[in-house]
Amino acid sequence: MKIDKDFITDEAKELLESDNLIKQAYEEVKTSICSPIWPTNSNIFTINNTEKNCNGVVPIKELCYTMLEDTYNWYREKPLDVLKLEKKKGGPIDVYKEFISEQEEDQDDLEGYKEFTQDGNIRRVGMEFETGNISSAHRSMNKLLLGLKREEIDLAIILMPIKQLAYYLTDRVTNFEELEPYFELTEGQPFIFIGFNAEAYAPNVPLIPKGKDGMSNRSIKKWKEKAEGK
Amino acid sequence: MKIDKDFITDEAKELLESDNLIKQAYEEVKTSICSPIWPTNSNIFTINNTEKNCNGVVPIKELCYTMLEDTYNWYREKPLDVLKLEKKKGGPIDVYKEFISEQEEDQDDLEGYKEFTQDGNIRRVGMEFETGNISSAHRSMNKLLLGLKREEIDLAIILMPIKQLAYYLTDRVTNFEELEPYFELTEGQPFIFIGFNAEAYAPNVPLIPKGKDGMSNRSIKKWKEKAEGK
Repeated sequence: MKIDKDFITDEAKELLESDNLIKQAYEEVKTSICSPIWPTNSNIFTINNTEKNCNGVVPIKELCYTMLEDTYNWYREKPLDVLKLEKKKGGPIDVYKEFISEQEEDQDDLEGYKEFTQDGNIRRVGMEFETGNISSAHRSMNKLLLGLKREEIDLAIILMPIKQLAYYLTDRVTNFEELEPYFELTEGQPFIFIGFNAEAYAPNVPLIPKGKDGMSNRSIKKWKEKAEGK
Repeated sequence: MKIDKDFITDEAKELLESDNLIKQAYEEVKTSICSPIWPTNSNIFTINNTEKNCNGVVPIKELCYTMLEDTYNWYREKPLDVLKLEKKKGGPIDVYKEFISEQEEDQDDLEGYKEFTQDGNIRRVGMEFETGNISSAHRSMNKLLLGLKREEIDLAIILMPIKQLAYYLTDRVTNFEELEPYFELTEGQPFIFIGFNAEAYAPNVPLIPKGKDGMSNRSIKKWKEKAEGK
């Protein structure tokens, strides 16, 4: 897979230039979305283009999330406190990671150290890979915006297929271009939108299964279990 | 029908106190959403509560819009320039009205008059009555936010049934409480959310037809036809 389009707010650009943890988060996401190959014996991602909506999209998401979880230690289904505890409604963020700097600090000033650990040393990144329709994408964007506004995350990322690729994926799956008119509503917050695309289109590669068909029944790494120390 | 809940941003509150045209818009919307009665020979709105999802919601919306169009001269399907002309995608706003002050101004200062007519004398209000699911409500909210951000409207309003009423309406129709956690994303903009409710619940009143069943085939007042001078 490859990245063809992106939209990065000024706030996200500044963080990418100044903050190594945020840069690391972005690199991990880019590597993970670019990792899927198809067919599995290929070294690029070729999509079957025999007809509109002929491939599934969930297996592509799962390949991306598998790398995020297994290689980079991201977690699934992170609830926002504002939704779970305060408003008592609304689902969790798809994938989430807390990046903690390994850099040692001078611990002579204990107060300063505490502050560094709590605020300066941790970067919380929330991401959603859109496999729903356009209105579902609006909800994802708003959920991440709420997390940023309440300072529960420090960077938000949304992954979507570009329009050219989405044409051959599940019916009505949203695409980068379709949500693009609304990207500007995230201005003022560190937000990144990524539009991915297949490296090649061909009629003679296998179809990507729809839904969860043909997927291994792997156990996902849920935030709940990490939080509870399981 | 009656209004049971609302959320009014500080910016909208200030406008309601200081601006007669905005106040008029709000009064017209409140009168229109409170106007539906059921059964039609009653003087209140009683909803059939024999089972979950047993009534339609679209006829309620149409009664509200009919009063806005016929009594108050609102228009349907107003496209935003940002979506139609610039981004070339995305649908129109449900209902829209331009309020123009009848107050005469001193025309001696032509420049001042021009400014008054263009900016001070017109208030553009966009509204959506939600009959879709929760993610569709996120899209409506974002469309109106985009209109506010681009200064194509001066006030945005969203109407939704409250949860208690929505239980007896079309399956999955969104409700006030479901979108409520996200209302704060509209802070900084003049935005009003209204949650309406039936005055009474009873098992012996007729069901509200679902979809467009049983509705008169009235012609709606489209903004396009007004704009084209038809």
